[in-house]
Amino acid sequence: METLRLRIAARSLAAGARVPSIRAMSEQLGVSKSTVVEAYERLVAEGALVARRGSGFYVACHAPPLALGAFGPRIDREIDPLWLTRQSLETDTRALRPGCGWLPASWLPQDAVRRALRAIARDPNAPLTDYASPLGLPALRQQLSWRLAQHGVEAAPAQILLTDGGTQALDLVCRFLLEPGDTVLVDDPCYFNFQALLRAHRVRVASVPYTPTGPDLAAFEHALIEHRPRLYVTNSAIHNPTGATLAPTVAHRLLKLAEEHNLLIVEDDIFADFETDPAPRLAAFDGLARVVTIGSFSKTMTAAARCGFIAARADWVEALVDLKLAVSFGNGELASDLVYRLLVDGTWRRHLDTLRTRLADAMGDSLRRLRALGVTPWTQPQAGMFVWARLPDGLDAAEVAREALKQGVVFAPGNVFSVSHSAGDFLRFNVSQCNRPKVYETLQRAMERCAQPA
Amino acid sequence: METLRLRIAARSLAAGARVPSIRAMSEQLGVSKSTVVEAYERLVAEGALVARRGSGFYVACHAPPLALGAFGPRIDREIDPLWLTRQSLETDTRALRPGCGWLPASWLPQDAVRRALRAIARDPNAPLTDYASPLGLPALRQQLSWRLAQHGVEAAPAQILLTDGGTQALDLVCRFLLEPGDTVLVDDPCYFNFQALLRAHRVRVASVPYTPTGPDLAAFEHALIEHRPRLYVTNSAIHNPTGATLAPTVAHRLLKLAEEHNLLIVEDDIFADFETDPAPRLAAFDGLARVVTIGSFSKTMTAAARCGFIAARADWVEALVDLKLAVSFGNGELASDLVYRLLVDGTWRRHLDTLRTRLADAMGDSLRRLRALGVTPWTQPQAGMFVWARLPDGLDAAEVAREALKQGVVFAPGNVFSVSHSAGDFLRFNVSQCNRPKVYETLQRAMERCAQPA
Repeated sequence: METLRLRIAARSLAAGARVPSIRAMSEQLGVSKSTVVEAYERLVAEGALVARRGSGFYVACHAPPLALGAFGPRIDREIDPLWLTRQSLETDTRALRPGCGWLPASWLPQDAVRRALRAIARDPNAPLTDYASPLGLPALRQQLSWRLAQHGVEAAPAQILLTDGGTQALDLVCRFLLEPGDTVLVDDPCYFNFQALLRAHRVRVASVPYTPTGPDLAAFEHALIEHRPRLYVTNSAIHNPTGATLAPTVAHRLLKLAEEHNLLIVEDDIFADFETDPAPRLAAFDGLARVVTIGSFSKTMTAAARCGFIAARADWVEALVDLKLAVSFGNGELASDLVYRLLVDGTWRRHLDTLRTRLADAMGDSLRRLRALGVTPWTQPQAGMFVWARLPDGLDAAEVAREALKQGVVFAPGNVFSVSHSAGDFLRFNVSQCNRPKVYETLQRAMERCAQPA
Repeated sequence: METLRLRIAARSLAAGARVPSIRAMSEQLGVSKSTVVEAYERLVAEGALVARRGSGFYVACHAPPLALGAFGPRIDREIDPLWLTRQSLETDTRALRPGCGWLPASWLPQDAVRRALRAIARDPNAPLTDYASPLGLPALRQQLSWRLAQHGVEAAPAQILLTDGGTQALDLVCRFLLEPGDTVLVDDPCYFNFQALLRAHRVRVASVPYTPTGPDLAAFEHALIEHRPRLYVTNSAIHNPTGATLAPTVAHRLLKLAEEHNLLIVEDDIFADFETDPAPRLAAFDGLARVVTIGSFSKTMTAAARCGFIAARADWVEALVDLKLAVSFGNGELASDLVYRLLVDGTWRRHLDTLRTRLADAMGDSLRRLRALGVTPWTQPQAGMFVWARLPDGLDAAEVAREALKQGVVFAPGNVFSVSHSAGDFLRFNVSQCNRPKVYETLQRAMERCAQPA
């Protein structure tokens, strides 16, 4: 019953479709025919199926709405990409969250945010109540244009579109470039929410193994031929979750393949501000022809005021603006204004310098402590907050995460990031959330418990 | 050429689809075959079509991305639902905008917003930098629960989901309930952005004539039978653009029809705070079984801090949260906090009282001045900011709007709101933006110019 319900919910069984016959289903699931009959009848009673005399069972015309995840009590919920999002956001504030994807509030420029809020309250010309203009605050787009130029990406302010955060930026680009049934290529592993977001777009997802210098190019070319993807979504600088950095030669060959196979690319540059040595940007090599850059200020500044952006070809921006207005009626100007004030605040550069040093220290500390537990980093990240590390002895990371959750510690199990589910013994650590001994103590105890035969 | 390009852009011709033969196309458009040959060859050269020897022309696999509108220079852009959005948002601030859908900044509680920003800056516990919890700020959801109860809508705080504005709320609900190819029913006329938003969902839109007491029920039933829509999107209180109010008997019969035909309903309650005599709410009659309520604070409080909400069945909220996290990673907590502080600010009720009185005065004034020009209100709105009015002598409202735009005055032509394009001689007036004599002078002159034979 649950199997069918999920297939209907995920719409892999479309409205009006005939469901497998009772015999076929009983063979497929290895249960008795009477069990299947009972399940089908209950689903008819629920209104999910319709029985047609002499012809079998069909999915009711108004199938249940789009469901992205499986539901259930918190700890038992299937460990999928949305599990981690929910655990990170829902767990009470006393919980430790070494698996979450952002910095502790105390690492963010809270005083500068307070100062900017006071400045907005004082400013007779501040955008306090009005809708934003279609592209968003011009002064912030000018700042972004300059900042992108520092990474070699030439984007005029008119090619930059503000959004309510980086995720909304990616969502808009996907709505613009994809249609249901298209295939999208991602890295394996990749930022877990790419999978959840792409599922909402009803597209197929294929993945390519990521190496410490970028995607595996042979596998990449093979995937282009086999899956003919429309779009590739990646991070070039400080890859999430691995902390790896794209090498220039890989970037160049990747773009050549993209041209040959008419592949479009979204470069999610959300970790740009953490970099110490700038990585090559696909958007810089390509000149924003087939690459779209997205970014946000949620990681280094504030996630409470949602502000992200898209930089893209001029002819695409025009259509993206229409789409943005249609589905959100524009981004929040107060958030843009706040971000702008923080960017031009004299203390911003100092904040970033402090942040990078603090992260580098935390990174060294975490790497040492993880190695001491037999947990092996996959690569030594140049910067950022993530360490992608393998558990010893083939331990199951999902089980370890589930054990640790009982102690109020949220870890991020590898398969949440892996489309091919080939990272079952990895965890992603956020070094900024790992400074308490309890993190390592809980990890050690959870690993010990999971290592024991049940 | 343009015809085909638009069909490809709108994806009514899918990637890989065969385009009509040269003969069929020449007959269809009433042009010579050689013209069609030339157009097809140019489209091949552009990469939009592919020619297959002996078999005809096909849409190239990577068709141009989703385009919602037609593009062109500002004044000549096709007058479609997005035209009005762009004109309202883009026109410089000195322009008069009697056609836009919001209040002037000076009518909004700017001092209260400043006060709230200062309070946030002072509050040691204010959400300055963190992501919101999955549903959004609990205190604001509690407030919303109480406020909905005043309209007879029972929604526990756990049934309320915060979003970045009312449009995002509707967008999320549509993503949840609809699949491409579904049919959605709207009022004729209806809020123009419903059409643009629904186009982005790749659904079919059917419409039902709106009367001063709600949708025409005979036409409504007929549409349910003919189009089998999945969803109906409407405003019950202070209908946009007509200013009409749903009558209780119509609400009751409408819900019975919805039950019979398994129709879901979104009630966009964005004008709730303008009401003087509360209208019946479909969500109250239905108990949030098949009705979803959405709302926002963009109209009475601020549109610069995006904050809206969805109230829905408990089992739907769970899936809506997943979807919200996947496509936006949550709403902005700073905006929620700001709205919450304004709601509980002692001056809020007084602000609304003042606003309603001011709107009632402006309404009386506008109705008088419009009648003096021979412009006839379709109904006398009980409250709110909109007057839906017919131009004299079958004048074309789009032409009048285009003339007025040359003088820097943005009017809202009727067909922008009408799926059936049956409101060609209507304009929607926003009485709060109509207090300057230039509005009426420009209207009069534009009408005179359009009445003259060209």
